[in-house]
Amino acid sequence: MEEAERLSESIKELLASGRDERLATVLEEVHPADVSRVMRELPLGDQVRVFRLLTPQSAGAVLSELDDPTLSELVSALDEVEVSRILDRMPPDHVVEVVEELPKEQADKILDLMEEEKSEEVQELLVYGERTAGRLMSPEFVAVHEQATVAQALEHIRKAKTGDSAFYLYVVDDHDHLVGLVPLHRLLAAEPGTPIHAIRTEDVESVTVSTDQEEVARLVQHYDLIQVPVVDASRRLLGTIGVDDVIDVIREEATEDIQRLGGASGDETVLDPPQAVFLKRLTWRVVNLGTAVLAASVIGIFESSIQALATLAVFMPIVASMGGIGTTQTATIVVRGIALGDMTGSVLRRVLWKEVWLGLTTGAANGLIIAAIAYIWKGQVLLALILGVALVFNMLVAAVVGTLIPISLKMFRIDPAIASSVIITTFTDVFGFFSFLGLATLLMKFLL
Amino acid sequence: MEEAERLSESIKELLASGRDERLATVLEEVHPADVSRVMRELPLGDQVRVFRLLTPQSAGAVLSELDDPTLSELVSALDEVEVSRILDRMPPDHVVEVVEELPKEQADKILDLMEEEKSEEVQELLVYGERTAGRLMSPEFVAVHEQATVAQALEHIRKAKTGDSAFYLYVVDDHDHLVGLVPLHRLLAAEPGTPIHAIRTEDVESVTVSTDQEEVARLVQHYDLIQVPVVDASRRLLGTIGVDDVIDVIREEATEDIQRLGGASGDETVLDPPQAVFLKRLTWRVVNLGTAVLAASVIGIFESSIQALATLAVFMPIVASMGGIGTTQTATIVVRGIALGDMTGSVLRRVLWKEVWLGLTTGAANGLIIAAIAYIWKGQVLLALILGVALVFNMLVAAVVGTLIPISLKMFRIDPAIASSVIITTFTDVFGFFSFLGLATLLMKFLL
Repeated sequence: MEEAERLSESIKELLASGRDERLATVLEEVHPADVSRVMRELPLGDQVRVFRLLTPQSAGAVLSELDDPTLSELVSALDEVEVSRILDRMPPDHVVEVVEELPKEQADKILDLMEEEKSEEVQELLVYGERTAGRLMSPEFVAVHEQATVAQALEHIRKAKTGDSAFYLYVVDDHDHLVGLVPLHRLLAAEPGTPIHAIRTEDVESVTVSTDQEEVARLVQHYDLIQVPVVDASRRLLGTIGVDDVIDVIREEATEDIQRLGGASGDETVLDPPQAVFLKRLTWRVVNLGTAVLAASVIGIFESSIQALATLAVFMPIVASMGGIGTTQTATIVVRGIALGDMTGSVLRRVLWKEVWLGLTTGAANGLIIAAIAYIWKGQVLLALILGVALVFNMLVAAVVGTLIPISLKMFRIDPAIASSVIITTFTDVFGFFSFLGLATLLMKFLL
Repeated sequence: MEEAERLSESIKELLASGRDERLATVLEEVHPADVSRVMRELPLGDQVRVFRLLTPQSAGAVLSELDDPTLSELVSALDEVEVSRILDRMPPDHVVEVVEELPKEQADKILDLMEEEKSEEVQELLVYGERTAGRLMSPEFVAVHEQATVAQALEHIRKAKTGDSAFYLYVVDDHDHLVGLVPLHRLLAAEPGTPIHAIRTEDVESVTVSTDQEEVARLVQHYDLIQVPVVDASRRLLGTIGVDDVIDVIREEATEDIQRLGGASGDETVLDPPQAVFLKRLTWRVVNLGTAVLAASVIGIFESSIQALATLAVFMPIVASMGGIGTTQTATIVVRGIALGDMTGSVLRRVLWKEVWLGLTTGAANGLIIAAIAYIWKGQVLLALILGVALVFNMLVAAVVGTLIPISLKMFRIDPAIASSVIITTFTDVFGFFSFLGLATLLMKFLL
């Protein structure tokens, strides 16, 4: 992406030197995806300047590439009529991508200012729930009746002017039900008089308007699709979802999983202003403070043991820390397995056994090492043994907790990725302190 | 994916009742992607049985869908001649997907048994490094000379029989250099006599054989491509990469990031046998043990302070734990930002400032809360203050460490995702214990 940095530098230079005409010429040659990337790094005033130098077509494409909060700030800084004129020229699904990120009031005002027909098309799409196939789909596609001939179909495609996203010809029956598709290259190779139903692929994977976007992504990945037809409950063809939108979903969902597992919110980006993410960050940090106080209260129970033998305080975080890595590793693999569709009910016992086996074996290895270190350091055999045993116990707890908590969350339809280390390591922190300090307290008379 | 579970059940039933003929009929109707999913859950003997009931074409597709270790176990259980006959019928890039996952010796033997021409095509692709565009690409595509007419191009496509993955016609010059492309639907709409160069898109995004697969994925996502042409250093067209392979790369890379951040290896799956992942899991657990011992040794320095005031041991893990969530949140957002291409050198100062701001503000809030809790619990104002101040310090360290470590790793071309919590929280563990216990020791005479 060095090219991207060069472009960014030259746009900033032209802005600084006020050569707007030259900048407009440069921008004409730049892909809208690159323009939007540069714009995110600019102060708002410069964003508006760059935006107004774009051709209307490229301005629309830039808008649909921008994400919050850049998008809503820019739109607020522009004139609403100006924005609605640009949206009028965009395909309805791209308008949806813009409008759904704006505050409701602003979105309504802009929709009102748009051409009636386009505005209605957009509002029809906005009826579908967020994160559903209906919200993602484009209502523009080419379909012919199954009784049409190849020649008629070709004629139809020529007239349709659907742009570069037409790769399949969809086939429908008398009631607009989806009954197949024909890849364009197959159409090219067919005799003009052949009826379409003779060359169509019948068994077409499709989704309904209410299918969750994550399920759409799984289908596309599983069956190597490049476009998915979207139908209603009675299989009437309503639109299509292109693989480019699906890739965005895949990256969005992966980002969400990664960030939630790291105890951050799913939609934060490095470029967000700190004020915008303050509350979300604070929430998890306060939750973490709560779990830390909980763990501290367990230590509090054993304060007199520590008073008697301060060495306990030196070793106790080791047991908790090892439980932490155990739960985190296990939960990470399980959460990812759920996202990839590998972690199903039928393999639960196998996975649990795997984790328990790993907890026992790596626990035993680490238990031996830490017992040896503790013995060499402090010269107390019994203390070393207690430490080793508590560590093995905690790794076993880690295996069970790390497997079962994400799966239970999934069963209750809660995103398993919120089983971030903040939550799950609470168990091993508490259990770790409890088992080590508890064992030591029970055997205290032999330790002193 | 309930359908998938039903399919899995019915295949297992047919296997159990020995109705192989019926099973073969069922399998004919099932998509190879679904067959391979079910096979991963079966014991090896049943995998072989299912595999031998497949048509040769579908057997090939199943092989290219399978991942290690299932793939190499299955291939080892089959006859090498049998495998090579199946590979002979597969497109060369799919054969590569199978062969590259096998042990070298086994792969060589199978390549020797294959038809010479196909084997050579495959070996040409295997020359390119792993995770490069060359290794991903298919050498099958349709290209015509820029001087050809639309009619000639159409004739060429009809003869090429490239299967369902042909969406673009590529345009080359006298030296096979890529000079443009034409989407098939544009070809359909053009007059037969039009020269191709008049309707081609000239500005085509392409990659070279040595481009990293992650860069290919970023390009596809950024420019919404569905196929990327692959060229050599002199822009000669050598192959194409379809978006389906790119989606696999995106998911693979996301899995790697998620799992490495969680302290697990990038390629582990929930279904791996425990023995296969034992060493990788153990490595991180031992590294974690090492960092935990390091943190414990810091506590060891202050053992006499704890002896004097055991309450210190109760609160000290809180400071470390808050540093842990701070570094983890920050590093997660930064690592994901690097993967998405948002985190570039030009925004480093802005991101660092954001994290420091968040560290200070959330640190102050949490510091106040914990000071209040400590005061109510233990009634010691000074201890409560020391705890609050140490917590704010540690959150600041977390902000800086969490931002700079992933970026430094990236600069040294090390995957920033290995900056997993195991590594980065070492800093805040050590600093947290040191600052809290150090401050308490300095002011010990006022605490007792």
